[in-house]
Amino acid sequence: MSFDPAVYRLCLVTDRDVGRGRALVDIVAQAVAGGVTMVQLREKTATTREFLEEARALKALLTPLGVPLVVNDRVDIALAVDADGVHVGQTDMPVAQVRALLGPRRIVGLSITSAEQMRREDAGRTDYLGVGPLYLQHTKPNASTPLGVEGFRTLRAMTDRPVMAIGGLKAGNSAPVLAAGADGLAIVSGIVGADDPRAAAAQLRALFS
Amino acid sequence: MSFDPAVYRLCLVTDRDVGRGRALVDIVAQAVAGGVTMVQLREKTATTREFLEEARALKALLTPLGVPLVVNDRVDIALAVDADGVHVGQTDMPVAQVRALLGPRRIVGLSITSAEQMRREDAGRTDYLGVGPLYLQHTKPNASTPLGVEGFRTLRAMTDRPVMAIGGLKAGNSAPVLAAGADGLAIVSGIVGADDPRAAAAQLRALFS
Repeated sequence: MSFDPAVYRLCLVTDRDVGRGRALVDIVAQAVAGGVTMVQLREKTATTREFLEEARALKALLTPLGVPLVVNDRVDIALAVDADGVHVGQTDMPVAQVRALLGPRRIVGLSITSAEQMRREDAGRTDYLGVGPLYLQHTKPNASTPLGVEGFRTLRAMTDRPVMAIGGLKAGNSAPVLAAGADGLAIVSGIVGADDPRAAAAQLRALFS
Repeated sequence: MSFDPAVYRLCLVTDRDVGRGRALVDIVAQAVAGGVTMVQLREKTATTREFLEEARALKALLTPLGVPLVVNDRVDIALAVDADGVHVGQTDMPVAQVRALLGPRRIVGLSITSAEQMRREDAGRTDYLGVGPLYLQHTKPNASTPLGVEGFRTLRAMTDRPVMAIGGLKAGNSAPVLAAGADGLAIVSGIVGADDPRAAAAQLRALFS
């Protein structure tokens, strides 16, 4: 991978449901102005055409800014808009298959929620891992049991891949997560749902300086 | 396209919800034994991994039998299993984009429900069109208004592409549709939901002899 590891510091993960009706591209533009280093476009209910158009708009916004765009799950959409990579979950396409379709130069990320998943072959084949959830998320009652900082530390120690922590993170509770070895933070509602996405991103980014 | 136009005669379109719990690969095997000439794998609720595994299983079944496999919507899954093509709807990826990702040798099909859609550029860029719905489908209350045989005849006359009729078709009501110019029939519940998928396919196939 030719990406600077600094891109894994602060990843905005989109969620249409928490943006309170604001245009996603505007939220992302503000978040990048605040210091986001990578964007993951995640769409779980959009049609393929809507997903594609959103991906194309974000790509046009982010490429001139030097911020990589990663597409959740859909390798075809990533290829169609020439995105910088794909992020998959445990029920998406296996990592080796994603890599075969994307080629060697794009980012492949994987979500990990347990030690058992961390031991599987797929985890070692990625460019980065998204490990979580760290904390309880009231907006995601069906999420996996939170790892907490100690659980996160254990999983972090199992891999030499860059690790982004995810799940219930905001500026006020992320310092211990970075101290536990996170290379970066992946943020959903902490930025997308914030009154001021730029300020929220800047507060998170300040944790790295 | 290097496919014999005879592949567009009888297309089985899968639907997990009407298979009454029977394994899809078994239903497809029986349908092919009955005379199905093409299979479109359509999954609207499966995870990407489940969709991929189903596509791989069907590809392994169909390739030795010389029956093309087309994947609904997901170009990435088609590429991953080396399927023979992709079928898109009006809210999926545009045809030119699908073609760019699949290359020139694979089948690209498109669903058409109106004259307005038939006039768009996409329609002329496909290898075949799926035109319908022909008849009222009680299992799809939200489907577009049925074209009926005369409506179908009008759309059929607007294109030189191979046209498969779809929507509420079975052996008993398909002869007038073929007489109106359909090159083939695309069948969902008429085969997938039949007590005997092989017999249902054979009855439909007999309409071509």
